[in-house]
Amino acid sequence: MTSSGGLGGAIPDPSVRRLSAYLRHLENLAASGVKRVSSRQLAEYVKGGDAQVRRDLALFGQFGRRGVGYDVEDLIQVIRTILGTRAQWNVVVVGAGQLCQALLRYRGFKERGFALVGAFDTDPRKIGTQCGPVTIRHIDAMEDIIRKHEVRLAILTVPAQAAQQTAEKLAAAGIEGIMNFAGAGLSLPPHVHVSQVDLTAHLEQLSFLVSSTRAGQ
Amino acid sequence: MTSSGGLGGAIPDPSVRRLSAYLRHLENLAASGVKRVSSRQLAEYVKGGDAQVRRDLALFGQFGRRGVGYDVEDLIQVIRTILGTRAQWNVVVVGAGQLCQALLRYRGFKERGFALVGAFDTDPRKIGTQCGPVTIRHIDAMEDIIRKHEVRLAILTVPAQAAQQTAEKLAAAGIEGIMNFAGAGLSLPPHVHVSQVDLTAHLEQLSFLVSSTRAGQ
Repeated sequence: MTSSGGLGGAIPDPSVRRLSAYLRHLENLAASGVKRVSSRQLAEYVKGGDAQVRRDLALFGQFGRRGVGYDVEDLIQVIRTILGTRAQWNVVVVGAGQLCQALLRYRGFKERGFALVGAFDTDPRKIGTQCGPVTIRHIDAMEDIIRKHEVRLAILTVPAQAAQQTAEKLAAAGIEGIMNFAGAGLSLPPHVHVSQVDLTAHLEQLSFLVSSTRAGQ
Repeated sequence: MTSSGGLGGAIPDPSVRRLSAYLRHLENLAASGVKRVSSRQLAEYVKGGDAQVRRDLALFGQFGRRGVGYDVEDLIQVIRTILGTRAQWNVVVVGAGQLCQALLRYRGFKERGFALVGAFDTDPRKIGTQCGPVTIRHIDAMEDIIRKHEVRLAILTVPAQAAQQTAEKLAAAGIEGIMNFAGAGLSLPPHVHVSQVDLTAHLEQLSFLVSSTRAGQ
């Protein structure tokens, strides 16, 4: 779920999510040396229809030729341009617990255009320790770092009861996009976008599918 | 993105995702002592329309009365019944790095119907340490634990190159749903459902929205 103001609101959220999925698949294809891909192959990856793939890409202009498909490298650059990740985004993590380490270890944030430039916490046992390339600092230093590095995106992993207050501080310091791991919803000015992460929802989706499959057997 | 076989395929994935979001909001409302909620209030939470909320809930039968709205507790139980989470699901984590700790710390898995009964790794430095309530064991012990606790859901956080092989082992041991943090896609029998987690996609969604908002200013 993403709140969207501005022009971003004109493109449906599910299309943007699918663009990310196409990009993952295209990056894997490029790494395997594949040069061309059809809308059908992209559709299989996201378990959708090839007409949907063509509709998604047509939202941003015309790419690919019937019967020839898409050039993999071209399409990667096109999607990165749409998503705004051809330039690097500086990112801070607030609430630098184990999730910070996990994020750095498990995801290729850097290769996908996101650079961690700050990590903040209030726990004295964490301050001074490393989270990947950065030293975890007290949350009081957050605003300076955000301004110095012109950071626009933040990952919020503080406990639910501290989420709103911390998000307001982030917005006041210039943050325009918050990836929110806290269970609580956030109420922020319309130019500040929130992408809500709900890992439990993945398990619920699976329990739904497994229950449904069994009921149908 | 979720692959779905069986009856689960009849309900659109986005509807199931929205049911999880409604449930999060209803749980928060219940915790605040709220007794009734309108489809409009639920719609605001997921940034959708109230007609969509009514359509989503109507997929599973008729609830709520026009002008009266939904009883919060009733609707929580209805959605849990649909999602299959009124009964507890035993879950294992494979690749028990910092993500295991983070998952346990940040999300109320247990209260939402998911109990961690096993955590596995191949790294000798991790084996024997704790991940929340369980001791991390060697991956060779995985099959026994899965059978003993009748586990059907697994969280897969191994490196991409080990993902397919580990997923096949999980499927062979009886797992029917895999929450996949690995970047690689999985190719598995149709009765094994995969829910792909892509945390970078949240940042891409935000970079898209922030870029679009600026372009529109």
